[in-house]
Amino acid sequence: MLMGNAIVGQSGGPTSAINATLSGVIRGAGKSGKINKLYGMKNGIEGLLNEEFVDLSYLFSDEEKLSLLETTPASALGSCRKKLPNLDTPEDIFDKIFAIFSKLDIRYFFYIGGNDSMDTVYKLSEYARSKRYDIKIVGIPKTIDNDLPCTDHTPGFGSAAKFIATAVAEIATDCAVYKMKAVTIIEAMGRDAGWLAAAAALAKEYNGMGADLIYLPERPFYDNEFIESIEKCFETHPNVVVVVSEGVRYENGEYVGASKQNGMVDVFGHRYLAGTAKNLESLVKAKIGCKVRSVELNLLQRCSSHILSKTDIDESALIGESAVSFALDGKTGIMLTFVRSNEGGYKIEISSVPVSSVANKVKFVPKSYINEEGNNVTKECVDYISPLIIGEKQIKYQNGVPVHIRLK
Amino acid sequence: MLMGNAIVGQSGGPTSAINATLSGVIRGAGKSGKINKLYGMKNGIEGLLNEEFVDLSYLFSDEEKLSLLETTPASALGSCRKKLPNLDTPEDIFDKIFAIFSKLDIRYFFYIGGNDSMDTVYKLSEYARSKRYDIKIVGIPKTIDNDLPCTDHTPGFGSAAKFIATAVAEIATDCAVYKMKAVTIIEAMGRDAGWLAAAAALAKEYNGMGADLIYLPERPFYDNEFIESIEKCFETHPNVVVVVSEGVRYENGEYVGASKQNGMVDVFGHRYLAGTAKNLESLVKAKIGCKVRSVELNLLQRCSSHILSKTDIDESALIGESAVSFALDGKTGIMLTFVRSNEGGYKIEISSVPVSSVANKVKFVPKSYINEEGNNVTKECVDYISPLIIGEKQIKYQNGVPVHIRLK
Repeated sequence: MLMGNAIVGQSGGPTSAINATLSGVIRGAGKSGKINKLYGMKNGIEGLLNEEFVDLSYLFSDEEKLSLLETTPASALGSCRKKLPNLDTPEDIFDKIFAIFSKLDIRYFFYIGGNDSMDTVYKLSEYARSKRYDIKIVGIPKTIDNDLPCTDHTPGFGSAAKFIATAVAEIATDCAVYKMKAVTIIEAMGRDAGWLAAAAALAKEYNGMGADLIYLPERPFYDNEFIESIEKCFETHPNVVVVVSEGVRYENGEYVGASKQNGMVDVFGHRYLAGTAKNLESLVKAKIGCKVRSVELNLLQRCSSHILSKTDIDESALIGESAVSFALDGKTGIMLTFVRSNEGGYKIEISSVPVSSVANKVKFVPKSYINEEGNNVTKECVDYISPLIIGEKQIKYQNGVPVHIRLK
Repeated sequence: MLMGNAIVGQSGGPTSAINATLSGVIRGAGKSGKINKLYGMKNGIEGLLNEEFVDLSYLFSDEEKLSLLETTPASALGSCRKKLPNLDTPEDIFDKIFAIFSKLDIRYFFYIGGNDSMDTVYKLSEYARSKRYDIKIVGIPKTIDNDLPCTDHTPGFGSAAKFIATAVAEIATDCAVYKMKAVTIIEAMGRDAGWLAAAAALAKEYNGMGADLIYLPERPFYDNEFIESIEKCFETHPNVVVVVSEGVRYENGEYVGASKQNGMVDVFGHRYLAGTAKNLESLVKAKIGCKVRSVELNLLQRCSSHILSKTDIDESALIGESAVSFALDGKTGIMLTFVRSNEGGYKIEISSVPVSSVANKVKFVPKSYINEEGNNVTKECVDYISPLIIGEKQIKYQNGVPVHIRLK
């Protein structure tokens, strides 16, 4: 086999584990002995088009830096939300990309990202196939949302879930100090799939304090049922804690958080949401009249790298390293996946699927994971998420704050 | 000296360190050999009046439980916001309280709290003095707000500051992944004093990523200056991070978070107190038109006990233990304080002041800690806060979430 170069990029919303995957790719490339140079593209496909690269083989030549990279939040290479045009549109963007590959002698292309990034992987691999261009195009999943199909779970979800379970336990403990009736509504990310809100269930299960009610976008939301459920909780205790996905919707499809929105959409046509918990705060104030407050967990869900699931970080690094092996084995047009085995305890193997079966599809929380009332998750759901948050990744601190690594 | 009993309560908004102080009181009472029984009053003075007590000497007889208590967030005994009436109003509430003291043979009263709680300590000690009742009444400070006078800083502030500095570093890192112009506005607690927002400065100082602009309530806020400062930041980088105290006000005294010009109306037509950061988000959207988002750090500032300053927790436990010594030495009507010495590095000694000099007063961020433009803090401020966030308190985890201890 001829020695060639490789390139890796990060795309979409950052996570606390996406740099662990990058460190895995760097390690894999270094160990392989079959890759001359590993380039990093800055800001994903956008940086590729602008020919903005860094030499990762050089920048991360020692283990200490790689280990710091593992616990640095967000995308060290930068990110983008650029979507490639359809293959059948007469655009020279693909020609341009492949001319750059050719110039840099790129034989392996790794793209770490979520749903939209897998669309990029799909299009590039289809184009390469149609042009018989010799390059292996490999997608590596990441998203705190855990909403990619074909994989048991996604790298990044475990750390987000650990943060959410911990934060919800702490907030529920905080809210329990007063004796007066109060409702606290905590908003988790999750536009279409409710995995992050579901992770809040681990707080009550394992810490003892947590959410009384959990609402996911997979089930329509009814104001009256919500108020009734709160009133029922008040029968046993004065401090009610609710966790709600940002994406919960009414039966007519309208987002609960939509009334504050001004119709903004992101470049992929997704509606921009901000105010689910705030709107429910107003509702509770109007219908029950007790003290009520809302807490958006917001960006910390995806960047709180001071509390990382060791399982998640280790797996995220492993899937990055494995991506290099799969590419060197000649695989292309694939996304790597986790396959879970529960025999003799939780175990993960790395596999792959054609990226065409992933792109632009969403994995929802299944029906059996949601209770009958639609206001909490089941034990089956808790058991599914539990192993993903196990273990604490040690963080390096200096002067009392975490140490991160930066590429410039 | 006759052996008597003691009682301790927690009051006001909880912190991540208030239980460390409680553990200190329990340790101090146990070691003293001069206190028969240490009672805990549930929900502060409210529980005292309802005669709701727990026997802390019995509940925390082993070190493992005490150590878990140290890292459990919020007030393990519960809290209240009850304020005692003035001493000269003809109410029998004081008689009632002292009858309970007498019944339980209480000789030492410890109250862990903030400003309002020190008012309770003051009134009880004045009443005891006027009735020549033999009891030592001791206040122990706590507040994440760091706004109590007469003490170098308050127990609880260091852990909140560490969380804020860490979160701001992480959020700034997250926000830097895209190349498009964007403003992120992070809201810290602090109604009157800006200490918590000021702590955000440690992010940039020690992590490298952090806030470009910091606004405190100590200086009037001007919309136009704010927009100009953001535009100036854009000259050097596309991602601007702002940290703002919830209590920032316009020159006319109106809270930015309650502003009519930038405010919102909720779905029920009521004017909605969206909050300071949300209102500034609207302002930036209107005046600059770039991507803008707001993040309220919210309750996690005071309860994120998964990231604790070891310095803060150790000092908080020490001041609790010292309170017992001061009381046994016959001191009453006092609040314990931290006195800082910087000779040969940061060092803290425990002292006390008459509680009358503390009650209902606020310690503001001094002028020399705020830069001339009023949009950041000075190196002097950073140097003051720095030692308080040093060290990481180890947390016990089980099944991936922190283990806490509860009294019931």
